[in-house]
Amino acid sequence: SGLDAIFKPTSIAVLGVTNSPGTVPHDIFVNLLDSRFNGVVYPVAPRKKHIAGVRAYDYVLDIPDPVDLAILVFPGNVCEQALKQCVEKGIRAAIIISAGFREVGPAGLAREQRIQALAAEAGMRLIGPNCLGVINTEPKVRLNASFARAMPATGRIAFLSQSGALCTAVLDYAAGKGIGFSKFVSLGNKADVGEVDLLRYLADDPDTSVILMYLESITQGRDLMRVAREITGKRSNSKPILAIKGGRTAAGAAAAQSHTGALAASAEVCHGVFDQSGIVRCGSIEEMFNTAQLLAYQALPDRKSVV
Amino acid sequence: SGLDAIFKPTSIAVLGVTNSPGTVPHDIFVNLLDSRFNGVVYPVAPRKKHIAGVRAYDYVLDIPDPVDLAILVFPGNVCEQALKQCVEKGIRAAIIISAGFREVGPAGLAREQRIQALAAEAGMRLIGPNCLGVINTEPKVRLNASFARAMPATGRIAFLSQSGALCTAVLDYAAGKGIGFSKFVSLGNKADVGEVDLLRYLADDPDTSVILMYLESITQGRDLMRVAREITGKRSNSKPILAIKGGRTAAGAAAAQSHTGALAASAEVCHGVFDQSGIVRCGSIEEMFNTAQLLAYQALPDRKSVV
Repeated sequence: SGLDAIFKPTSIAVLGVTNSPGTVPHDIFVNLLDSRFNGVVYPVAPRKKHIAGVRAYDYVLDIPDPVDLAILVFPGNVCEQALKQCVEKGIRAAIIISAGFREVGPAGLAREQRIQALAAEAGMRLIGPNCLGVINTEPKVRLNASFARAMPATGRIAFLSQSGALCTAVLDYAAGKGIGFSKFVSLGNKADVGEVDLLRYLADDPDTSVILMYLESITQGRDLMRVAREITGKRSNSKPILAIKGGRTAAGAAAAQSHTGALAASAEVCHGVFDQSGIVRCGSIEEMFNTAQLLAYQALPDRKSVV
Repeated sequence: SGLDAIFKPTSIAVLGVTNSPGTVPHDIFVNLLDSRFNGVVYPVAPRKKHIAGVRAYDYVLDIPDPVDLAILVFPGNVCEQALKQCVEKGIRAAIIISAGFREVGPAGLAREQRIQALAAEAGMRLIGPNCLGVINTEPKVRLNASFARAMPATGRIAFLSQSGALCTAVLDYAAGKGIGFSKFVSLGNKADVGEVDLLRYLADDPDTSVILMYLESITQGRDLMRVAREITGKRSNSKPILAIKGGRTAAGAAAAQSHTGALAASAEVCHGVFDQSGIVRCGSIEEMFNTAQLLAYQALPDRKSVV
């Protein structure tokens, strides 16, 4: 599916890193290092010789070795050029952290469509733009490509969210409760990878037992229903999916739009989709995690004996 | 003096790094990274692709950029070969952490003499072997090339010691008391750089106001007296030197010998040297730091007004 390059890269280039602690373009790189990523991380920063003790490169094309994953933290208007160089370098996956796309209006939307086309043509998979990043706690990988200072604990819950702000809140909540994750994904604008691709990937992920989603919009309702039904309804190795539909209040809907440029689908439509796909609707983060904890760490009832 | 390459390098190769946390060959590299060294650190580790997220090189000669300082953590019997490659690479300074030299007997002594000759011929300055490393807290440098997990606080006290074990104790003591350092040096076997070179260097160091020494042997007594007198007796910018003569008890003397291969000079001789050079003798670490704190943070009396 190409998503292994996102979750299990062996080499990563971070494009647009700076030497200013406390800023996203610096901290993402340092978080990768500090979490002891089990691979190589290359900082790309024009006219910088080193970032956090590591030799930096002016351009991604200057890196003498192959690169699996690019993480872009350049300002939105520079991303397109940087992404072109990633394609030229033969990089097959990218996480675009940068904002300044669909969510900022027509110029941003056009920008997003150009990177979308660029990636599609090159067969490159994209997470983002306008996202918080990706975490894979798998001990063999240890990927913290996110704002999160500390890698969360390892666990059997996968979490994906459209809202970056919510990601931070959820990480704090989980750390307080000692809840661990297998994968943690901030989807952002979903220019390429969305919830359907991720559900497919997580269905086959041996480290994930339960999948949690916070969605503000549903872009591929029919696919989502089909894939979710398949995952939750399997005879063996089925995985529960829990979801919160965000952006329910008027304020929430406005936030959803500003975050992702997507018009939040009506709650009723979403709930209908959830109910018909075996997705467990949750009313709050707390409810979602309480249920997930129960489900992740006990065997599901045998379907036959229930029926 | 060549010691700037040791205290203020802009690029460092660490030779013999491993991927096993909790071992010196791993932790020294990680400590450099975690202390946010303001330059580039290259791990050199045959057949390793990366160490702690950073691209590794099989040999120091494979590093495509110039290197100022080499830190050797290879086993003692491999150091000679590695040091030859450092010379070939044009590296002008090295810290040899590895044990297995003078302190282990005749074969080790011969090995130490060979690296001594190698360095002398190449004009390369050496700290060690058999030492704990070097720390420079200067914010522009931030060099923690040592076992010490955390960089000590910045302060105006320079500390140098022949005993590695004592270095650890002193760092713990200082951390507990909130005492900061300018430079911190573990001299080890003193194959090249000894206390006299360091005193000369620290005399000119604008970040150092007081110099503390823990010595088990004195190899250049006459030079030490001359240099110490000069530093303590200057009309302006004089710096107090405080010292403890280690290895006083029979057990201490045995420890001194095993640590550095040097026969501890008799306490009487050392005290004579100290007294005649304006070096303040201290009976304990606590006494030394209490005095140093007083001296470091208050102006010395004007010599004229005292006389």
